[in-house]
Amino acid sequence: MSLLPDVEIMTIGDELLYGQVIDTNSAFMGQELAKIGLRVRQISSVSDRADEIVAALDQARQRARVVLITGGLGPTKDDLTKHVLARYFHSELVLHEPTLAHVEGIFKRYNRPMLDVNRQQALVPANCEVLFNAVGTAPGMWFDDQGTVFVSMPGVPHEMKYLMNEQVLPRLQTRFQVPPIEHVVVQTVGLGESFLAEKIAAWETALPANVKLAYLPYLGGVRLRLTGYSDGQPDLRQRMQALLPELHAAIGEYIFAEGEVKLEAAIGPLLLARNLTLGTAESCTGGLLAHKITSVPGSSAYFRGSIVAYHNDIKVQELGVNPETLAAHGAVSEATVREMAEGARRRLGVDVALATSGIAGPGGGTETKPVGTICLAYADAHQTVSRQFSFDRGRQLNVEYTVTMALNLLRQNLPAGEVVKL
Amino acid sequence: MSLLPDVEIMTIGDELLYGQVIDTNSAFMGQELAKIGLRVRQISSVSDRADEIVAALDQARQRARVVLITGGLGPTKDDLTKHVLARYFHSELVLHEPTLAHVEGIFKRYNRPMLDVNRQQALVPANCEVLFNAVGTAPGMWFDDQGTVFVSMPGVPHEMKYLMNEQVLPRLQTRFQVPPIEHVVVQTVGLGESFLAEKIAAWETALPANVKLAYLPYLGGVRLRLTGYSDGQPDLRQRMQALLPELHAAIGEYIFAEGEVKLEAAIGPLLLARNLTLGTAESCTGGLLAHKITSVPGSSAYFRGSIVAYHNDIKVQELGVNPETLAAHGAVSEATVREMAEGARRRLGVDVALATSGIAGPGGGTETKPVGTICLAYADAHQTVSRQFSFDRGRQLNVEYTVTMALNLLRQNLPAGEVVKL
Repeated sequence: MSLLPDVEIMTIGDELLYGQVIDTNSAFMGQELAKIGLRVRQISSVSDRADEIVAALDQARQRARVVLITGGLGPTKDDLTKHVLARYFHSELVLHEPTLAHVEGIFKRYNRPMLDVNRQQALVPANCEVLFNAVGTAPGMWFDDQGTVFVSMPGVPHEMKYLMNEQVLPRLQTRFQVPPIEHVVVQTVGLGESFLAEKIAAWETALPANVKLAYLPYLGGVRLRLTGYSDGQPDLRQRMQALLPELHAAIGEYIFAEGEVKLEAAIGPLLLARNLTLGTAESCTGGLLAHKITSVPGSSAYFRGSIVAYHNDIKVQELGVNPETLAAHGAVSEATVREMAEGARRRLGVDVALATSGIAGPGGGTETKPVGTICLAYADAHQTVSRQFSFDRGRQLNVEYTVTMALNLLRQNLPAGEVVKL
Repeated sequence: MSLLPDVEIMTIGDELLYGQVIDTNSAFMGQELAKIGLRVRQISSVSDRADEIVAALDQARQRARVVLITGGLGPTKDDLTKHVLARYFHSELVLHEPTLAHVEGIFKRYNRPMLDVNRQQALVPANCEVLFNAVGTAPGMWFDDQGTVFVSMPGVPHEMKYLMNEQVLPRLQTRFQVPPIEHVVVQTVGLGESFLAEKIAAWETALPANVKLAYLPYLGGVRLRLTGYSDGQPDLRQRMQALLPELHAAIGEYIFAEGEVKLEAAIGPLLLARNLTLGTAESCTGGLLAHKITSVPGSSAYFRGSIVAYHNDIKVQELGVNPETLAAHGAVSEATVREMAEGARRRLGVDVALATSGIAGPGGGTETKPVGTICLAYADAHQTVSRQFSFDRGRQLNVEYTVTMALNLLRQNLPAGEVVKL
């Protein structure tokens, strides 16, 4: 392992230093590098000034043997990176014909006039290897300079991601003979990191020496990632998969998927396999539950709609909640949220309905129902299930957490039956 | 200006390098520093290893006279920063009694047992000035070392924000005699940066030498920020405000607020001033429009609810859309979306309704209605207004853009009348 190079990430742009743009590129690169087993030594964000870029390059190469650079490759006045790199590597900009043809093709396709600044995107330092950018006009550039690899990529996230996955990562694996690594991801929801760790302590301890476990918490759950390092034996991935039945035995009720699947996407196959339609009735989540569900392409195959009943009148008129229930128990109560879920089933004509009601804050809390009091309900043809809990980490997070818990309630209560494997 | 110190931001934590956490702290600090006129020279994210933290500190002080550090102050095993700083500044950890009392108070309030690790939060290097953290257990620490100021803050965003605003920024202004700066922000929506720039070119050129304009684009609009530097004359802020009437004359129709106000928050006062209630009928936005509206605390004073009619049956049954309209024009049409808005007014009993329908993608596009075809409608007691446009930057952004355009349609079409100033 110690022969593997450290990696340095350098993001360029005044907009990063002014805080106008949050640097999400570095996190993506860090994740992808970790997946192939490379360590990021440092992330630096620097200005659009040539002298400061050069100083940062000098320092980065002292710390790492790979320097991944994003930003400053656009067609506007601040496309400084390319010029700085040409000078830094004692080269000059030359026209790269395949890139020019690619850029011309893009402009022809969209029927837009091509300006001189666009043509300049095909200029690259003579001594770099050009990394073809199929999804944009600015190519990536790979420099191998005295044992250190420098790679320049556009700052536009989807272009950087394309170049990382298609070009940079495979080349790094070849260039530095990075041994293959396997990842197996298990998605859990509904149990905090420390409780989860306790439940799987014995399993974790018994993991083979070449398999490491990482806890990746998110709001409402934890992703478990197994990383398997080559031990010279065949079938590493299959051997890792063989570790999972015991994990399921320990915490199966909290596992909703294997692989990179979000909870809102995981419920789709569960509903489709049972031929069930879904609708929601939302108070405190204000539409976010429906938005999360519909953020999944193809969700129209099972999701029919939502009634966001923010005002109590809507709960009564549109969802058929009994005014006496509201009077006796309040809008934030298991009694009300059960009637909301049952009403949504009828009104939306769906098989399964979820309902939310809570005090998201910052206002609206009382002595008996403080901010963060949340009620959820699930209703299908056979049963209505409700629960109440407390969660207060500010209005936005309270609502997001409620959505996750509602989706989990759905997963937990769907009628049993033959179900396709995710 | 040249006497002002450059600032370096240093965020500490392996989770940043692995990309498990996106560094949003740096962007916040960059924004706040820019507001008082201080330039960020570089942002560095480094690991939890002591030697690498020390190396980064050494380099940072060569570039800047202020180094702001976040992270590594938690009560767990990785609270390394404090120990590293004590050694770096040749000091030792001592108990800070006021912090201990504060931490004890917090644990008493929540009735939780206090562990030894929690008590250790009150240990600070003897030669630092303690910055009281009213919103958390880990205090900030201010070191003034050979002309360079180092400040250590917790990595928890709301604690860091509290310390920045309440402690660090005021102290920096005093310590470096930073001349006061004034900011005037004007929020616009509905016109791209280059078109906006063209319309206000004459106004921008005529700005006084001590007033600078920044374009801060977001999806659907641009924030304009005027920064005024002291020219020795009084009433700088009032003189900047006096520049605005001419700006309103040039682009008034696109301006929705002055100050740091989001569009979804700006519509509240407009509705309240007119004593109007609001509801939505959503297809392609799938609940996000209602969620944005209800993300504003107090929105229940004017927002009653939403019908998310993802399936056409719901459009007919719940919103009263005529099946013949759907058959003749399709769900994504101005005809349908107008009926959705009118139906939402009736069904939700609201004065004003917004409706959305579109093809968010990636699937569902046709020859005549490609992905990104969006229809919006606004309805009140006097009129129904609709529009259709194209916008395709991927499912999530398409939906977010649609929400912004819908809120803008509301703003543009509300009945005229005496309206409170935002």
